[in-house]
Amino acid sequence: MAYKYAEDKELLLNRLKRVEGQVRGIARMVEEDTYCVDVLTQISAAISALEKAGLVLLADHIRGCVTDAVSTGDGEHSVNELVGVVERFLKA
Amino acid sequence: MAYKYAEDKELLLNRLKRVEGQVRGIARMVEEDTYCVDVLTQISAAISALEKAGLVLLADHIRGCVTDAVSTGDGEHSVNELVGVVERFLKA
Amino acid sequence: MAYKYAEDKELLLNRLKRVEGQVRGIARMVEEDTYCVDVLTQISAAISALEKAGLVLLADHIRGCVTDAVSTGDGEHSVNELVGVVERFLKA
Amino acid sequence: MAYKYAEDKELLLNRLKRVEGQVRGIARMVEEDTYCVDVLTQISAAISALEKAGLVLLADHIRGCVTDAVSTGDGEHSVNELVGVVERFLKA
Repeated sequence: MAYKYAEDKELLLNRLKRVEGQVRGIARMVEEDTYCVDVLTQISAAISALEKAGLVLLADHIRGCVTDAVSTGDGEHSVNELVGVVERFLKA
Repeated sequence: MAYKYAEDKELLLNRLKRVEGQVRGIARMVEEDTYCVDVLTQISAAISALEKAGLVLLADHIRGCVTDAVSTGDGEHSVNELVGVVERFLKA
Repeated sequence: MAYKYAEDKELLLNRLKRVEGQVRGIARMVEEDTYCVDVLTQISAAISALEKAGLVLLADHIRGCVTDAVSTGDGEHSVNELVGVVERFLKA
Repeated sequence: MAYKYAEDKELLLNRLKRVEGQVRGIARMVEEDTYCVDVLTQISAAISALEKAGLVLLADHIRGCVTDAVSTGDGEHSVNELVGVVERFLKA
């Protein structure tokens, strides 16, 4: 089955690929003893990028899975799950 | 010059390598149309792991660079920079 | 009209009253020149308490308003709004 | 003893007073059954305001207490405490 995020699949894959590169770059910076503040700035940027990818996915999830579940009268589980996901995301 | 985080270099490199693997795993999940909630859970985990790596580095930075700068009477710039880093990190 | 959070109204009001007291206490600490770290600890506690109140409200909102809107085929606006709220909350 | 934040005391007290008013306003919104999204927006704003007050205090703390402690060769405890505070603040 395809989820709603299928539409944003390319976008998500590109972003995740970029984050992977960022994290690899951060490791290289550490290996080369780059100044801590510059490393920290890159870590903040990678976290922001992951959060943005997460928000795209979350929006698709609400628009797709949650909406479907609620529409077919089966929203209870889906909504509880969503609340848990948002909570985890906010506390990450 | 080696920064204070030299002591935690192995730890940091291991963690960053693990995060890189997590992000690659997340991309694979998206490629295979994994259920959104499971993808989001992994994204939250990767963000937490990056935050933890950032905190290790930040602690080393304060213990090393900031302390050195202050000891040699050159703390002003270093302290302003630190405040900026925390601010950026908080907003990441 | 009563929103879903009506059920948690007492809980929310109690929490908010407590946060209000916390913030007043923090102002008093500043006025009495309390040690910065102790003030910062109380600020962190007040932020956590507000976030928890926000999560209760957010969960009720999803269970109530969003679910209702989706059920009546009017989910589009509600879902966009929800995504915006989560985003703002994440960046708060 | 006066801490470094003495200089920002008025600023901090004004901000905290405003946050206290914001939180009281949020409670009133809940009491009057205001639409959840509007309440959540105000909660996000109050959290931001508290974070900003915390950052002012944190900067003063580093400029004052931590710098003093490090300068007098007594930085160890102060730096460990600072790392703890930042960690708590980031996780709040």
